[in-house]
Amino acid sequence: MGIVAVGHDRDWLEVRFEDGTTQRYLGTWLRDNITTGRHRDAGQRTFDINSLPEMTIAGASLHADTVTVTFAPEGLDATFDAAWFCLHRSTSGTGRGVTPRPTLWGDEQQGSLEFADHPTLVCDPARLHDWLTGIRDLGFGLLENLPATPGSILEAVDLFGYVRETNYGRIFEVRDEPEPANLAFTRLEIGMHTDNPYRDPVPGLQILHCLVNESDGGDSRLADGFAVAERIRSDHPEAFQLLTTHPVWFRYLDGGSADLQAYKPLIQLDSRGQVTCVRYNSRSAQAFDMPADVMAGYYRAYRILGDLLHDPGARIEFRLEAGQLMAFDNQRVLHGRTAYTAGARHLQGCYVDKDSLHSRIRVLEAAR
Amino acid sequence: MGIVAVGHDRDWLEVRFEDGTTQRYLGTWLRDNITTGRHRDAGQRTFDINSLPEMTIAGASLHADTVTVTFAPEGLDATFDAAWFCLHRSTSGTGRGVTPRPTLWGDEQQGSLEFADHPTLVCDPARLHDWLTGIRDLGFGLLENLPATPGSILEAVDLFGYVRETNYGRIFEVRDEPEPANLAFTRLEIGMHTDNPYRDPVPGLQILHCLVNESDGGDSRLADGFAVAERIRSDHPEAFQLLTTHPVWFRYLDGGSADLQAYKPLIQLDSRGQVTCVRYNSRSAQAFDMPADVMAGYYRAYRILGDLLHDPGARIEFRLEAGQLMAFDNQRVLHGRTAYTAGARHLQGCYVDKDSLHSRIRVLEAAR
Repeated sequence: MGIVAVGHDRDWLEVRFEDGTTQRYLGTWLRDNITTGRHRDAGQRTFDINSLPEMTIAGASLHADTVTVTFAPEGLDATFDAAWFCLHRSTSGTGRGVTPRPTLWGDEQQGSLEFADHPTLVCDPARLHDWLTGIRDLGFGLLENLPATPGSILEAVDLFGYVRETNYGRIFEVRDEPEPANLAFTRLEIGMHTDNPYRDPVPGLQILHCLVNESDGGDSRLADGFAVAERIRSDHPEAFQLLTTHPVWFRYLDGGSADLQAYKPLIQLDSRGQVTCVRYNSRSAQAFDMPADVMAGYYRAYRILGDLLHDPGARIEFRLEAGQLMAFDNQRVLHGRTAYTAGARHLQGCYVDKDSLHSRIRVLEAAR
Repeated sequence: MGIVAVGHDRDWLEVRFEDGTTQRYLGTWLRDNITTGRHRDAGQRTFDINSLPEMTIAGASLHADTVTVTFAPEGLDATFDAAWFCLHRSTSGTGRGVTPRPTLWGDEQQGSLEFADHPTLVCDPARLHDWLTGIRDLGFGLLENLPATPGSILEAVDLFGYVRETNYGRIFEVRDEPEPANLAFTRLEIGMHTDNPYRDPVPGLQILHCLVNESDGGDSRLADGFAVAERIRSDHPEAFQLLTTHPVWFRYLDGGSADLQAYKPLIQLDSRGQVTCVRYNSRSAQAFDMPADVMAGYYRAYRILGDLLHDPGARIEFRLEAGQLMAFDNQRVLHGRTAYTAGARHLQGCYVDKDSLHSRIRVLEAAR
């Protein structure tokens, strides 16, 4: 849209657009964003705010589709296109261009479960894009036709990111081994949980690849922790307040090799109040350490969270066969499995950071 | 300390200690922490809150140094040692056992700069512990006598963690190459900044290893972003409020290979108001996207932050020679360098997550 008039005072430039609307732009903001202040290749700004003098707008003039602003005391003239002003007409603080809000779900998602075909994703950018945006927006994705061989999980990781190595190695094993010390637990149902809440940062994505599944049962479950958190926010505001405010101490202790600890709330909010991480893992939660007058209310809130996360209406359930894989947002989606009877079952897992997933989606969109 | 009496109502157990003080313990909390509810090897809890009935305390009795509590409706008897009650006498929510608060610093730190000796750290756990706690508490550590050969940086990483691989690879190069497109910038002073604010999670630790330094100048600078943040909190509360509340859009765009974006505040707080991350990088900050009525105040706050981060009183300065290395907390400590004249300069860098650093410190302490 064209510009029909500009005006200014010491601090602000006012632009009137063709449609009669006006918008004010702060002089310092304009000076900070002059096009000649960015490297021509990388588009990176080449100066810092502290290297600029306190400045005022000394003049502004309109020439066709450009506005030239003169800054004092520098005496610097900078030219901005109408398109630049249009792009920044709505400075609403919505973070345009950044990750979209998640699509919340419950068991109705069960009806649309699909395993994407790995060989197809490797050679079809459009299909890959769809699969990756599913992981971004729903928090999980399913894949099949990957070789059921050790290490093949890395071929799936290559689609969008890099392994996050930890004390568990680049790849960890989830399998049923006949060790008496663990026999009571290995085939039991595993409740819904997120992995490694004792780690900071918490692993962003978890990938689980099935190599063998000859057992009866052992089906996988996933639940949307963000959906549960939003339900608590609306239905149990007092519980939400407690769960987002009081940290819990998580710990994983492995003899002489690791002592991982974190002290974080079960539901974490960002500065705008949006849920950014759900941590839920009774196995590694230590005795809650909070004032006695908070404890009873906190346990009521904790029970609400635990009940909702285990509600059948909140989850999907499916069986991973050899050569199939699930990838999920470990800061959002809880996982668990049903009990199973005799028969070998072997998964390989790894953790992956989320930034590369989002980057890859944007690169695929730009290449369209 | 011994226990002289116990009492209870439906929800609470009251314990009176030898010194005459009393402490109340919530029944649900006790039931959640029974010793038989944890796996004997891993110490991990074997049940979830949602698998417990709503319960009351049906009885409590004291026998020497143990207290037996009966829970209804389960009819379960659980025994707790006096030591357990002592350990949890003060449930103040301080996160005992987790990472201590940082030691804030400014240019007075210049007087105590020391490069630790790499071969010594490899074989002396006490010295290694001291060096690692320095990184934890001060946010940085210096090392020397590492081979000045490509890849030797990984020997330093092996002391405490795992490389975080990104689109820049496992190791990235920082060197002066005679490429015309960048010549104007490569030898100039580089202002104080944190790396990769466009990434989520932001790399926790950055390691920079010097392979060649034959230039005149090019000295390294570090500043404590947490100290600056606390100064703003106390001296400029309005600015602190703006910097911790309004997200900024960061972006790194690399042609067809990467489009990394994050939308985060420059100073990030946790749910208790403690500073957990400082992001400052004018090169990758995009035009601020916030309402016009916030913009002028935000720019005043941004200038305060930029000025304080570049204040000579806030920083240390030293020269990295070949074979020397610095490791610093990239979520806290800003780095930069002075201008330099002709002469080769080559650093290798990598990112490392912080959780392993803290784990390694605890393991070293437990082995003493």
